[in-house]
Amino acid sequence: MFDSIHEECGVFGIYSNVNQNVAATVYYGLYALQHRGQESCGIVVDRDGVFTSHKDIGLVNEVFDHETLAKLGDGNIAVGHVRYGTTGGGSRANCQPIEVHHIKGTMAVAHNGNLTNAAELRSELELKGSIFHTTSDTEIIAYTVTRERLTHPSIEEAISAAMDRLEGSYSLIIMSPMKLIALRDPRGMRPLCYGIRPDGSYIVASESCALAAVGAVFVRDIEPGEIVVFGREGVKSITDHCKKATPALCLFEYIYFARSDSVIDGVSVQEAHLKAGEYLAAEHPVDADIVIGVPDSGIDAALGYSRASGIPYGIGFVKNKYIGRTFISPGQSEREDKVRIKLSPIESAIRGKRVILVDDSIVRGTTSGRIVKLVREAGATEVHVRISSPPFVSPCYYGTDIDSCENLIACHHTCDEIARIIGADSLGYLSLDHACHLAEGAPHCAACFGGGYPTKIPTDTGKNRFECPISR
Amino acid sequence: MFDSIHEECGVFGIYSNVNQNVAATVYYGLYALQHRGQESCGIVVDRDGVFTSHKDIGLVNEVFDHETLAKLGDGNIAVGHVRYGTTGGGSRANCQPIEVHHIKGTMAVAHNGNLTNAAELRSELELKGSIFHTTSDTEIIAYTVTRERLTHPSIEEAISAAMDRLEGSYSLIIMSPMKLIALRDPRGMRPLCYGIRPDGSYIVASESCALAAVGAVFVRDIEPGEIVVFGREGVKSITDHCKKATPALCLFEYIYFARSDSVIDGVSVQEAHLKAGEYLAAEHPVDADIVIGVPDSGIDAALGYSRASGIPYGIGFVKNKYIGRTFISPGQSEREDKVRIKLSPIESAIRGKRVILVDDSIVRGTTSGRIVKLVREAGATEVHVRISSPPFVSPCYYGTDIDSCENLIACHHTCDEIARIIGADSLGYLSLDHACHLAEGAPHCAACFGGGYPTKIPTDTGKNRFECPISR
Amino acid sequence: MFDSIHEECGVFGIYSNVNQNVAATVYYGLYALQHRGQESCGIVVDRDGVFTSHKDIGLVNEVFDHETLAKLGDGNIAVGHVRYGTTGGGSRANCQPIEVHHIKGTMAVAHNGNLTNAAELRSELELKGSIFHTTSDTEIIAYTVTRERLTHPSIEEAISAAMDRLEGSYSLIIMSPMKLIALRDPRGMRPLCYGIRPDGSYIVASESCALAAVGAVFVRDIEPGEIVVFGREGVKSITDHCKKATPALCLFEYIYFARSDSVIDGVSVQEAHLKAGEYLAAEHPVDADIVIGVPDSGIDAALGYSRASGIPYGIGFVKNKYIGRTFISPGQSEREDKVRIKLSPIESAIRGKRVILVDDSIVRGTTSGRIVKLVREAGATEVHVRISSPPFVSPCYYGTDIDSCENLIACHHTCDEIARIIGADSLGYLSLDHACHLAEGAPHCAACFGGGYPTKIPTDTGKNRFECPISR
Amino acid sequence: MFDSIHEECGVFGIYSNVNQNVAATVYYGLYALQHRGQESCGIVVDRDGVFTSHKDIGLVNEVFDHETLAKLGDGNIAVGHVRYGTTGGGSRANCQPIEVHHIKGTMAVAHNGNLTNAAELRSELELKGSIFHTTSDTEIIAYTVTRERLTHPSIEEAISAAMDRLEGSYSLIIMSPMKLIALRDPRGMRPLCYGIRPDGSYIVASESCALAAVGAVFVRDIEPGEIVVFGREGVKSITDHCKKATPALCLFEYIYFARSDSVIDGVSVQEAHLKAGEYLAAEHPVDADIVIGVPDSGIDAALGYSRASGIPYGIGFVKNKYIGRTFISPGQSEREDKVRIKLSPIESAIRGKRVILVDDSIVRGTTSGRIVKLVREAGATEVHVRISSPPFVSPCYYGTDIDSCENLIACHHTCDEIARIIGADSLGYLSLDHACHLAEGAPHCAACFGGGYPTKIPTDTGKNRFECPISR
Repeated sequence: MFDSIHEECGVFGIYSNVNQNVAATVYYGLYALQHRGQESCGIVVDRDGVFTSHKDIGLVNEVFDHETLAKLGDGNIAVGHVRYGTTGGGSRANCQPIEVHHIKGTMAVAHNGNLTNAAELRSELELKGSIFHTTSDTEIIAYTVTRERLTHPSIEEAISAAMDRLEGSYSLIIMSPMKLIALRDPRGMRPLCYGIRPDGSYIVASESCALAAVGAVFVRDIEPGEIVVFGREGVKSITDHCKKATPALCLFEYIYFARSDSVIDGVSVQEAHLKAGEYLAAEHPVDADIVIGVPDSGIDAALGYSRASGIPYGIGFVKNKYIGRTFISPGQSEREDKVRIKLSPIESAIRGKRVILVDDSIVRGTTSGRIVKLVREAGATEVHVRISSPPFVSPCYYGTDIDSCENLIACHHTCDEIARIIGADSLGYLSLDHACHLAEGAPHCAACFGGGYPTKIPTDTGKNRFECPISR
Repeated sequence: MFDSIHEECGVFGIYSNVNQNVAATVYYGLYALQHRGQESCGIVVDRDGVFTSHKDIGLVNEVFDHETLAKLGDGNIAVGHVRYGTTGGGSRANCQPIEVHHIKGTMAVAHNGNLTNAAELRSELELKGSIFHTTSDTEIIAYTVTRERLTHPSIEEAISAAMDRLEGSYSLIIMSPMKLIALRDPRGMRPLCYGIRPDGSYIVASESCALAAVGAVFVRDIEPGEIVVFGREGVKSITDHCKKATPALCLFEYIYFARSDSVIDGVSVQEAHLKAGEYLAAEHPVDADIVIGVPDSGIDAALGYSRASGIPYGIGFVKNKYIGRTFISPGQSEREDKVRIKLSPIESAIRGKRVILVDDSIVRGTTSGRIVKLVREAGATEVHVRISSPPFVSPCYYGTDIDSCENLIACHHTCDEIARIIGADSLGYLSLDHACHLAEGAPHCAACFGGGYPTKIPTDTGKNRFECPISR
Repeated sequence: MFDSIHEECGVFGIYSNVNQNVAATVYYGLYALQHRGQESCGIVVDRDGVFTSHKDIGLVNEVFDHETLAKLGDGNIAVGHVRYGTTGGGSRANCQPIEVHHIKGTMAVAHNGNLTNAAELRSELELKGSIFHTTSDTEIIAYTVTRERLTHPSIEEAISAAMDRLEGSYSLIIMSPMKLIALRDPRGMRPLCYGIRPDGSYIVASESCALAAVGAVFVRDIEPGEIVVFGREGVKSITDHCKKATPALCLFEYIYFARSDSVIDGVSVQEAHLKAGEYLAAEHPVDADIVIGVPDSGIDAALGYSRASGIPYGIGFVKNKYIGRTFISPGQSEREDKVRIKLSPIESAIRGKRVILVDDSIVRGTTSGRIVKLVREAGATEVHVRISSPPFVSPCYYGTDIDSCENLIACHHTCDEIARIIGADSLGYLSLDHACHLAEGAPHCAACFGGGYPTKIPTDTGKNRFECPISR
Repeated sequence: MFDSIHEECGVFGIYSNVNQNVAATVYYGLYALQHRGQESCGIVVDRDGVFTSHKDIGLVNEVFDHETLAKLGDGNIAVGHVRYGTTGGGSRANCQPIEVHHIKGTMAVAHNGNLTNAAELRSELELKGSIFHTTSDTEIIAYTVTRERLTHPSIEEAISAAMDRLEGSYSLIIMSPMKLIALRDPRGMRPLCYGIRPDGSYIVASESCALAAVGAVFVRDIEPGEIVVFGREGVKSITDHCKKATPALCLFEYIYFARSDSVIDGVSVQEAHLKAGEYLAAEHPVDADIVIGVPDSGIDAALGYSRASGIPYGIGFVKNKYIGRTFISPGQSEREDKVRIKLSPIESAIRGKRVILVDDSIVRGTTSGRIVKLVREAGATEVHVRISSPPFVSPCYYGTDIDSCENLIACHHTCDEIARIIGADSLGYLSLDHACHLAEGAPHCAACFGGGYPTKIPTDTGKNRFECPISR
């Protein structure tokens, strides 16, 4: 139910030695990454060094049709992007991948992440006469790489040099006329992996689910700080260059962003969801008759809770799949209407039962409150809410767009108060400790859950956010 | 996976004693009935005897927006309709509800079902000089009622008389300037029920899920052969009129058409799904590690199978919710592409396991074959397919648009052959006997599963269908 | 400047002995008749007895594109229609040609005109159980013909019999599976003619300009009361049947409706316009420096005035051709804005001159007032307005949709008063006497100019119009 | 009939001291400049230093509606642009005005013209690390101004310095958060003027017709080389700065581009058209019965010819005003169809007469040939074609997009040959000498007519054009 949490995009690229319908491949790949961004999308195709592109506001199936795909034509390299949806904002100028012409040719850049030193870099560039068409970090990255290119013999060396200047999170796919280049920031804060197809073409994507969608076999994740170059000579890895840092993949990927069929840095996302449910059962047990998940966000964790507790798993809701993004409400209360139309409790599964209701988060509390009410109206005798993540208490500076602190219910209320507000008989959050164990292995960034920031953070973000004074 | 099976519509109506935003109520109701028809939809509003309407090809969220809803305005009675989607066919002229002007005023008719004597009635009317604008049964119904109206003092008496002439399946909502009238054919082949809202307005709908969606409390199903009149004087039931018949609600409503949160003629649709899974476990047991359902059609039955067999239930697929109706495939094989993009197996749930895969049907076999292949590629060691309905072997004359016999895999192959064709290690269908026990109570129509036709069937349907010579 | 005067449609048909792209021919023909109706349009194609159609609200170039034209496909007969634009009204159901299915097959009807006994005919039909889908006269005509068809051996005899029942104005093109039939009411109130193409196909159209547009040679006008049948056996004329009447072609066709390159009942429309200007010069001479016409309605008559008076003709306005029907005005005064944006006076042609400004009418006076103001602002020292038609003083019951009497400036004011209201130095209308001489030959209907009604008129039109009490 | 000749745009700006609906004013202004460019358009509004914009491919009435205009909101400065239509080319990225962010703030630039040193400037900028998002000159201009801004204390001084670097034609409107700046290149090759409105706001526009359209009074043309700054302190003119040059306004503005109600550099465009006709009558007299102009391009000149020769002026064509840009032709020969549907000869004006047919140009000859054929088919006994401009013989480097030399009929044939090709009895072009006298006063650029280039021309344009070897 993360209606108010957004991440900044999915990236996808293909490199082939021969011309083929690369636009079609990216198109399919973007479908598989659509959950990472629904505001805008775009594809840039490289055919013999000439770039052709199509980008617009909208979902993949709104922006691309037979005509626009045909216009893109064949090529041997291509890169695509999906961008997240803010309310109101979002102009065409900010659609990605961005394409720029520079002294050595052309370049297309697709970016997932957020720079923490964007303001400094921008001001520095402007002082040298640079003009900006957009307000996005991606243009800053393109400039930084272009400037380094003037003094470096190859695009990958320019990128390596630029990485010493960029701070924050960035998983990038950069297309030059001859090469496709994939890289992750030194902490690997956003995911990126690549695979290979039977025809020998290489696929790079934010998540492994997009490799499968285009018939590619997963090879491996791009390492934090690594640059991987796909070109005529095959695959080249550059690791021994920029300053090193402790890995800090965003924990949120496992909890909310990534699709449950993806595997990131060696961990299955569905396994992480199931494990969250199991931990919840251990941390917050309760006597009940059925465990149901809020679709689709709480389904996996509900099953995990059921497995660990032995309480039967049930299917408690029908989700109306015809409610599109353009749903309009002619009535008084649009939001309330939307929840009611979108989510219908199944009375025969619920009536007369003590229900454990699992979801992945509570943001403002209003939606959760409405769902609890629906479950009670369907005849539940008790409703115990279990949340498969810790409460949000701090802003994110790495690309996750959480509501401002004043709107986050967890910043102002104790767990018991929240239970009362949403009308639950009991409420339990996953502990930060357990959350950090969802994906064993490398350390993660859990800053938004109060786990501390892995980098210096901007002093003036212009975003009117501040670290939440409340801690639990 | 009923890609090739379609039903003929959902109907919805509201009667209120005072003017209010009835169009909004119908709009929400149609959202909840959208699964019954995706080709076209329409709403007619009655304000002080003047009808205003909007209908078009498209989904509810495509046809209605703020402007068209505002144009409909307030009123005290309204009726709406969603129509199913054929490939290619479907013109605007056939959108419902149809509105006609006759000597006593105006009338709007929304119809779910199929007449079996349409050709005779039509020819009889034409011989008297009638002209037809559409090819639909609904216009024949409107004419038949209008002609009876000339010699009967009220619209309900005219309808009662018309029912003696109409044969086949029909659940109708008819709006006259002062009344809303709901009726079901003498066998009750299609569902229809009504409810009441806190403000005293009455709601009629094909399924109870649409009552809940607009805040109405379920009162009861319309009885087979019953006419219910909503008007100034309250609710009036007419039951003692037309010839009686054995009830024969379409069994398919419980297996496929109806939403799992609906209750039809006293039986919960989800319960029927779960029971189908339980029967399947009893009829076709197999040793396995996990039971997974094909989303969304096999989920409930898979859970039923798991509960009855004790084999763990798992979530085996991610369904891409961004694939709209307008999905286009730039590649060679559009259908194959679509399945792959739409349904992604979750490897971590499947790899190394013996999988029981539950779905509600096999039509042509191609889609099922692709899904089995996906599950094997995700690492399943065995794939046992279980189908929660009997095989289709006969055409339907009551409004269900099944593929012609030559395309139905079950008409040409034995169960073992089908298993081989779709690549399954074993295959089991629900038996006709168990299917008939899914919804205890009144007898059902199971003609398409070889259960025999409850009525005389048209001798020449012009549809190039014939009863299948094969039986099992 | 007849912003508020509308006529009811243009009709077009083609008959060929062999299948060809008849839809394309009708499409071009409708472009040439678009000035007769801008609200909706439609084409019905007959291929081997099967009708395919496409109709919608909008201009020809909005309703038809490559896809819809391709869908219509080839055929050997086709009929098309353009319909006039009312404000607000106009639903899809009223788009023409209408198609109906009756006992003998199918029929498509395209109609230009207005019945004066529509209410009687409709009520009579309804008493026999007929239902109506539209509110248009065309459906009444289709019913009347269909009923006669039951007792007559051919469609043309049925039409002939129906003509004895229809009263008012009607130019019709009727398509049956084998024939194309064209007819005009006994007074020939609306135009209709036919031609032949080099390939032997026949073209029927409201105006001769549409024949030229599709490469046909004009053969002759359909005579008042005549039925012309195009079929396998060639062209058949039926004249000796219905009751005769004095011809009464609408005079307005020559003044406003018809295109200046058309020739109707033997008279060139441009010649009529020029003659109107010449008569005006004789009736209302004035000393001036330049004669300019309001584009496009006053151009021809201005040239006629110049030729007769010897005062130089000038081009006084630029008309903005980019103002579409969808022009929106973000400012306060939409109408005023629109005139100013649409019509720009050419100062170099006007400054310092005494101007004679010619237009074809004054309806409410507001637009004329604005144009006079524009001419003065451009530096004219005097503005003398000359109108190439008599003032409207009576409503039309034959298909011309004039503003109601209360809005017609000529119903409430003398000529001098109107001159003052619109700010002109002098004003002169064409006399009724001269108007009746614009097209020599058969007598005309000049009812709207106070010339008397050629038929009985409806006593209750439901249109809130009444004959104007004022006469001059 | 300049189907293949295009000019590069119209610009429009408003400066007001108080916030008002400036977007509406620009919207109206762009309507009046739409003839200068039909490919794309855009508006940028400045409200308290914050820019809001909307631009897209399409005509003004396609790109702007109530919603997009409302989104732009109020402001005190705004700038707009219309861009010409190339076939195929034209992406959203090239829509103007362009907006850029630089070290001193933001800037919007609207440009009409063409730089002749674009390639040099671009390469110079790229060598310093600049990246380009578009392929247009406007981005080069923005960069050049931005770089000068780093070392100059005000935007106008930066512009002045930039003018020393820009070569070619440019009429620019530049909006900074506080000022609106208008300037013309030192030769004044493209027009630009300004006016004032009763509320004290200033309007800048490519042509005076756009001043009138928004209620502004013409003040004066911007002088060649002049910078005019509109701001808090009123109007400031900067003339004493860049290198001077001989004026060279494009002669084509008077012949084709500009609207006939505009006055450019003191000369009325309609007067120039009339004078062209008078010169033609003197240069190429012929005995005939009527002079008709091809609408709309030849109308003014035809009247001039008639006045000078004494041969009566006539209206020979009806132009179909419903043929939009989206006209599609289902037939074989789209171009031929379009001419026939668009232009209908009026037989009653032409039959039996010797016709002088006046148009403004012949490009490829095919369209002219079709028109001559139409006139003959309408019964003309002789057709004498007179062209109100000299033949094109050389490419333009200043923003006029003429067909390449190989397609220009005048590059390959003598006048007599062309007459035979288009089927005329005689043909006469306006002489270069007379053309240069159409607009008395400052010297003009008549390079495309063989009058010599006023500037150095690019050696490699990448446009595959070369000066035509033929001269007459």
